[in-house]
This record gives sequence, structure tokens and C-alpha cells, in this order.
Amino acid sequence: MRNFLVAQSGGPTSAINSTLVGVLKRAMSDNKIDNVYGAIGGICGLINGEFFDFSKNIKENDFMLLTQTPAAALGSCRLKLDEPEDNPEQFEDIVKKLRAKDINHFVYIGGNDSMDTVNKLSRYLKSQNIDDITVVGAPKTIDNDLIHTDHCPGFGSAAKYIATTIAELERDCSVYDVESTTIVEIMGRDAGWLTAASALSRLAGGRGPSLIYFCERVFDREKFLQDVRNQISNRRNVLIAVSEGMRTADGKCLSEALGLSETDAFGHKQNAGAGRVLEDIVKTEIGCKTRSIELNLMQRASSHIASATDIYEARKVGEKAADCAIKGEGGVMANIVRLDTPDYAVKYSSFPVCEIANHVRSLPDHLINSAGTDVTEEAIKLLAPLIKGEIEAKYENGLPVHKRLF
Amino acid sequence: MRNFLVAQSGGPTSAINSTLVGVLKRAMSDNKIDNVYGAIGGICGLINGEFFDFSKNIKENDFMLLTQTPAAALGSCRLKLDEPEDNPEQFEDIVKKLRAKDINHFVYIGGNDSMDTVNKLSRYLKSQNIDDITVVGAPKTIDNDLIHTDHCPGFGSAAKYIATTIAELERDCSVYDVESTTIVEIMGRDAGWLTAASALSRLAGGRGPSLIYFCERVFDREKFLQDVRNQISNRRNVLIAVSEGMRTADGKCLSEALGLSETDAFGHKQNAGAGRVLEDIVKTEIGCKTRSIELNLMQRASSHIASATDIYEARKVGEKAADCAIKGEGGVMANIVRLDTPDYAVKYSSFPVCEIANHVRSLPDHLINSAGTDVTEEAIKLLAPLIKGEIEAKYENGLPVHKRLF
Repeated sequence: MRNFLVAQSGGPTSAINSTLVGVLKRAMSDNKIDNVYGAIGGICGLINGEFFDFSKNIKENDFMLLTQTPAAALGSCRLKLDEPEDNPEQFEDIVKKLRAKDINHFVYIGGNDSMDTVNKLSRYLKSQNIDDITVVGAPKTIDNDLIHTDHCPGFGSAAKYIATTIAELERDCSVYDVESTTIVEIMGRDAGWLTAASALSRLAGGRGPSLIYFCERVFDREKFLQDVRNQISNRRNVLIAVSEGMRTADGKCLSEALGLSETDAFGHKQNAGAGRVLEDIVKTEIGCKTRSIELNLMQRASSHIASATDIYEARKVGEKAADCAIKGEGGVMANIVRLDTPDYAVKYSSFPVCEIANHVRSLPDHLINSAGTDVTEEAIKLLAPLIKGEIEAKYENGLPVHKRLF
Repeated sequence: MRNFLVAQSGGPTSAINSTLVGVLKRAMSDNKIDNVYGAIGGICGLINGEFFDFSKNIKENDFMLLTQTPAAALGSCRLKLDEPEDNPEQFEDIVKKLRAKDINHFVYIGGNDSMDTVNKLSRYLKSQNIDDITVVGAPKTIDNDLIHTDHCPGFGSAAKYIATTIAELERDCSVYDVESTTIVEIMGRDAGWLTAASALSRLAGGRGPSLIYFCERVFDREKFLQDVRNQISNRRNVLIAVSEGMRTADGKCLSEALGLSETDAFGHKQNAGAGRVLEDIVKTEIGCKTRSIELNLMQRASSHIASATDIYEARKVGEKAADCAIKGEGGVMANIVRLDTPDYAVKYSSFPVCEIANHVRSLPDHLINSAGTDVTEEAIKLLAPLIKGEIEAKYENGLPVHKRLF
């Protein structure tokens, strides 16, 4: 018996199930593999013995539906493993569970924490001289903050959702002939890639945001107010994109730093989101019509407007990860390498996961303009290919069809 | 000279520009009409003399692009006219402005306030025996709350956005194996039609919301908590849809009624949204992982997921309104009449606007279940046809193309 295991972890994206399909297609077509299992709820499913048997329970048509289904079809978890040196029992248990199902190949699809799991597991296996179990990572994160991959599957679809929505909101906010400010808070605690994607809204002729604030830059209240006043006098209806992770010079989140903690309905103090704080500042200091909008979970779940490029690449990354796992190339993460060609082109490769886990790639300086209020032309060129192409989704009764595994 | 005027008013929708196209197509192809103008910024554009000359400035290709452009291409306003008896000067001025441009036909596209404008203008014209100027209304509102039309253009697209998004969020919220509550606040201060549309998320196999709370029903804190507890023990991940206009028995909004006014970042008291209040109640009383999401302006601006049925009907309603205006049938609103046929079919007609203006159609009792926490099967049957069909939008660089008139 030679079995294969796949699991998904971390926050869902619109592309993570496409990576799952890539993994399954590669593994299920390999005649050296007997059964392909999914662990339900990430690594916890493996530990708790909850499996989905793909070899028995999936039909060809399901693959197509899975690629258009948001969130993690196998469920997810947020368990961070201990250090193998500190808690070898945890790892012995995992190996026992893998042995019990005759699993020799394990692909873990996820973000930074999941790559940490792949790294620790691989390290433990090596330390025990176990060479017939291979663990490989497949990246996914809308935040695009993993290093050693040109970009992350999931990011392109979130970026396309954000660019499309910003373009639509910009039209909506410009219909009234009164001064107004609309603030859109975009996900990203430590990396402003998604916030940068708001600028892609200009690619079909739209004006895009008037101002963009990145978590890579320090927030300055007075400069912000001056920026907004300049924009209002210039174009009347001002649209602002802001990273949720925006901080002041002392590293505090806006709500905390500005002494503006919000009191919730029950009198509990809690930190207001960055968009809400900016809304309050504009309302109080400028006084024009102001609204803040949080794009919230829709950023990672709006698979109906997924990027065809992203969905395709996500699948290829999954195939590559399964390929590495089957060939015994453990301790790596499958990655995307952009080729140095005039037109956008990539290849799929792999990179040692020990050099990836627990690092964060933020938006580099050269992609943010000198005023810190917009992206550079280079950023647009870099990101534009990732949102290209529309998926041809199957609809039923006016709704995109999702595949539910269990 | 015999000219035609069109204008848009009130909150934007994904379908209002399709109605504009219907009006333009009908008016511009009529050989009795010389010029077709648009007033920029609703009735204010007429009063201030700001016009867009469609006869000179629009190409065939623009019509197609307009139907996929969200928000009001001609701009909007929120001016409510005085009573003609109280302020005849305001009406004299408007007639003077119409005469100055040789306008004999005026179609006003909008919601309840705009129908009030159509009504007052028509009444004034009649009182002055002016019979060579005809004013006609064309309905639009995502709220679906106008009476004497089966439904309103704009509603179907907003409903499709809501149903699609709820289906996606339901997938997203079910990936973790921990008890959680996700509350989605949906637009609608006085009518729960859009909130009802959340149930349409079940039409492609999804589970839909666990609980739906309508502004047509009184909010009871203890019953709500019991509902949520029952659902959590039943399906663990609970998704709740709630109308923004939800009120308690004394008619107060939740935040006010429950003594839960929120303090903003600057210490100003303000009413929290219904979703936010429910989030606070669940967090405090039940304590599970809880999040509230506001679908905000995306409900009316997400033209990329517009309903093809809605976009088609919106255009036909525009054609009908222009037809009435050209034929001298003033003081009416073009409307949609559902035919009593086994399959969904409608005809386009018109109805005296004096009987429509300033009435609100809320969700009738038979569309809400007896527990007040879901819709009935009849509601699903009634609303399902309105979200059917996907538009074939033109994309450029991965984004839907919008048409900007000026």
C-alpha cells in the first residue's frame, strides 16, 4: 500500500480548492499511488483520524465544480505544531497516524503557519531518518506575503475582487454633487499587497482611489488630513483605500495610537478598524459626508469574480506540489517563478520550506510612491497580469454552483 | 423643435443605466423627436441648466457599455420638490427651463422621492393646463419597495449579489470546527425584500442563512438569543442575515432601543448598525467566535454580478416610460406586471404615479415564516426568477468596462 494525503489549512481563498484539484489530479493519475485521502480540518483531521477518501468519493465533474468553490473544501484549522525538539510525542503521534493509513506522501496547502507545519514535520522525519514519508507545502494566501514565490495562489482572485469593487464603488460615490469621502478598509495586517491591488481598478479606465495608505508606511494624522483636503478641493468625491494593518510611528494600530479606542454597545472598549478611525477623523476635522466600508470576508470568498490566471496557476502549483511529494522531494514548497520574458509567463518549481516559513514579504519600497499615497507604475505592471481572465463558472438558478465534499 | 429629457435620481443601482439605455433607444429612434438631453445630477441639472446632449455625444457601442456600468451615469440628486400649491415659483422655474430647451417629454428614473417629483410636476402642469409637456416616471430601487409594480428594476441584481455573497460566505464560515456566528447586515430600512433575497442562496444547493431577521418583524432580544443557541447546537457555524432597519416593539432601532448606543473614536455617541448590535449581543451572552459583516454599497454597485433578467427588464421599463412620454401619457410610472403563466413572464405597462408616490411596500406576511426567522417557500418561488441569468460583460485587463459619460 502506498497512499497519498492532502489537507488545507489557514484562512480560505477563492483558489485553494483549485490547488486541491491540482494535487488530486496528479496523485490520482499516478499508478504507484493506491489511495488518495484528504484530512478533514487540516492537520487536526490527521491527528483525529478524520479522512475523506477521494479515491472512492469523487467524480470527474466534481473537479470542475471544486475549482469554482470558495473556502476550503476539506475544512481548515489553525493549529501550530510545537518544536519537534520540545514535544517529540506530538510528531511521533502524527507519524503513527500516517503509518496507520499507509501514507507516504503528504501535501499541505496553506499559508505561513502551514509552511511552518511542513517545515517542522520534514525536520522531524529527517531527524528520525524516516525517508519513506515525504511532506510538501503548496502555498495559498490572499495576503501574498510568502517569500520565495513570485506571488501566492489566492492573491490574484482577491486582487481582482478588490479592483473590480473599487472601480464600482468609485462610480457609485461620484453620483452626487456634494463633497464626500469614502474609505475602504482592505485586508492585510503586515503586507499591503491587497491594498495595492485597489490601484488596479484603473486598468479599465476608472479613476481608482484618490489616496492609498499602506501598512508599510507610518500613519501621520496631520499629513492624512492635508492629503484629504487637497483631494476634496481637486475632485470633490474622494475614495480612500487603507490597509487594515496601518500603524502610527510607535507601531500601534490607529485606534490605539490615536487614543480612539471604541466603546462597543455594551461599554466594552475595543479597537476600531483602520477605516472606521479614518472615517471618524474626516467627519470630525473636515465634516464632509463620510462613509467607511470594510470589504471583509468577501475579499477571500468572492469566487464568482475569481481571476482565471490565479485559478489556473493555483492548480498547477498543486500539481507541482503533488509531483514533488510523489518523487520524494520533501521539505519544499511548490512555488511560482516569473520568467524574464516580454509577456507574462511563469514556471512552477519548488523551494526549501525552511527558508520560507515564518518570514513575511511586505510590499517593497519601489512599489509605493514617494508621497506614500499610491503605488508606482512598476507595481501596476507587476500586478496587472495576476487579475487577468474570467472563469467560466457553472451557474444554476442564477447562482454559481459550489461543490460540498461532505 | 421637439426635444426629450431624461434624468436619474436617488440611490444608484446596477440597473439604472440599463433603464437609461431603454429610454434613449426609444426616444432617439423616434423621428418626431429632435434632440435628446440628459439633465446632469437629476432635477437639479434641469434647474441649474446642466445638460448632456445624447444626440451628439453617444455612439452605438456606448449603449452596451452603459448597461454594464453601475451607479447613475447622469449623476443623481436628492432634492425633494415643495408642494406646487406652497411654492408655485419653483414649478414655474422648472417649466421655464424646459421651455428654454424646447423639451416636451421628460422621463425621470428613480425611486420613491423621484416618483414624488413626477407626481408634483404632473399635477402642476395639469393645474396650469399645460398639455404639451409630459412627465413620466421609470422605477428603480434596490429596496423593491415601490407599489403598483410587480418588482423594481435594480432589485434583481442586488438580490443576485446578496444571494451569491451569502452562499460564498456560508462556505467560508463553515471551514473551522469551532462554534461561530457570522451576522450579515443587509440594506433595507423599511422593507425586508433584500434581506429575503439572502434565502435565494439556497437555490444552487447551499444551506443559506441559519436565521433571517426582517425589519417587518419586531426584534426580541431573548427570542433572538434562544434562536442562536438552538442553531449553534444544531449546525455549529451559524450565519444570520438581518435587515438594517430591524426595530424593537417600541419602534426604535436596535442600538437605541437596547440602550446600546456606540461611542465612536472621538467619544461621540452614535447608533451602531443592526449587525453590529447583534454581534455584541452574541459575543456577550453566548461568547462564541462572532463577526458582523455589512454588505454596504456593494449591494447596489456590484454590476459585475448583475441579473440578466433585471438588466433586460430595466431596459424594457425605460423603453415603456419613454413611449408613454412621447405618446403624451403623463403622470404615470412605467411598471412591470407579472403574467399568470406557469413560467415566469411579464409585460410592461404604466400606472398613475399619484397612487404610487410616498407609499412603501414592505414584505407581506405570507412571505415570512411563522417564527419570523426565515422566508416561506412562496417567497422563494416569487423571487427566484428575478436573479436568473448572467450578463455577458465586456472585460478589459481583467476588469469589467464602465462607460463614463462626462
